[in-house]
Amino acid sequence: MPKIVDPVERRTRIADAVLALIERGGVAEASLRNVAAEAGLNVGSVRHYVDGHEGMLLLALQEMDARVERRITRRAEQFHEGITQQERTDLVIGLFEELLPLDDERRREVAAWLAFTEHSRVTPALQPAARGLIDAGRELARFVFTSAGAPDVDLAAESMAALVDGLTIALLHDPGRLTESQIRTLLAAQLAAGAAGFDAIDDDRAEPPPQD
Amino acid sequence: MPKIVDPVERRTRIADAVLALIERGGVAEASLRNVAAEAGLNVGSVRHYVDGHEGMLLLALQEMDARVERRITRRAEQFHEGITQQERTDLVIGLFEELLPLDDERRREVAAWLAFTEHSRVTPALQPAARGLIDAGRELARFVFTSAGAPDVDLAAESMAALVDGLTIALLHDPGRLTESQIRTLLAAQLAAGAAGFDAIDDDRAEPPPQD
Repeated sequence: MPKIVDPVERRTRIADAVLALIERGGVAEASLRNVAAEAGLNVGSVRHYVDGHEGMLLLALQEMDARVERRITRRAEQFHEGITQQERTDLVIGLFEELLPLDDERRREVAAWLAFTEHSRVTPALQPAARGLIDAGRELARFVFTSAGAPDVDLAAESMAALVDGLTIALLHDPGRLTESQIRTLLAAQLAAGAAGFDAIDDDRAEPPPQD
Repeated sequence: MPKIVDPVERRTRIADAVLALIERGGVAEASLRNVAAEAGLNVGSVRHYVDGHEGMLLLALQEMDARVERRITRRAEQFHEGITQQERTDLVIGLFEELLPLDDERRREVAAWLAFTEHSRVTPALQPAARGLIDAGRELARFVFTSAGAPDVDLAAESMAALVDGLTIALLHDPGRLTESQIRTLLAAQLAAGAAGFDAIDDDRAEPPPQD
């Protein structure tokens, strides 16, 4: 009787191996040979599921993206009619915290993201996927600011996602530089600013603020 | 008569070669052999000035850092007594724009920064330098928010620098995603928010903050 292989489990195992290798040693470490050893598979098995180095990177990113999306969806399902403003803010902050390196799992994800993004800079075939990851954060932010009725959803989303990406770099390389409470304060401030819009602030530049 | 070598010019030439190689091919491209070829020097000459791969990277970063600092200092010298609020805002925005990939020179710099930072993640000897670069943006922001009398200079600085870093990644990988005018609007908004402080937003949340 042939051994029954679960292809989903196989892909997950390969993705996990790639993510672990990138975290420990960077993108170059995720060679076919290393991935097979890390996953406890033979090189032929890995080859059956992925097409070379770039294929392994893309598989790992898809898996990572799917995990982040599952966590975010789980949180987003907690939105409901009659939610208070404060509950809403807490929920939204929780959505963005899923993108920050605040525990081992997310640290591994953002390390892989930044490593992949840098690698994509000099590997044209990977650039669409790298842009897709940059866009994903902005999509999430667009969803949030649309439902908040922000006057300039695109700009608010760019700003929020850029803040999250910048915090990601800082916290990945220096985890202790901000407390979780400080991070939440910064995210809340950015949410409030984006929801209020940028025109007023833009007008501020020449004259004293027209409202408030 | 021996040939007279200007060591400053040599170091600059080596640094430029390293930066160009990183931009084109990533950190791995900046090998001793490639750097020598790119700089038009022999390997022995390069070795005279730098100690191996990590030494070359650090030399290039120091050079890059010095260039950015010169540009920022030149702008900062334009602050003067009796400057209007609008002139001040424009000047401050200009300071942060020096860190964004808005032309070829700055694109090369931020590409090198991100490549180096990713490399440092798996190269402990480079981590102090990588943190130093993360800190440098925050130092600049701290200077700005201190002189603006911001109530929480550290938090304002973290937020501003994180926004700039996040915009850097997005603009490096997708240069057309924001116009210069949109970028200035986002920087101005962040400046205004940081100068106004974060306490009001923090008070909105579940409990009152324990201290302050």
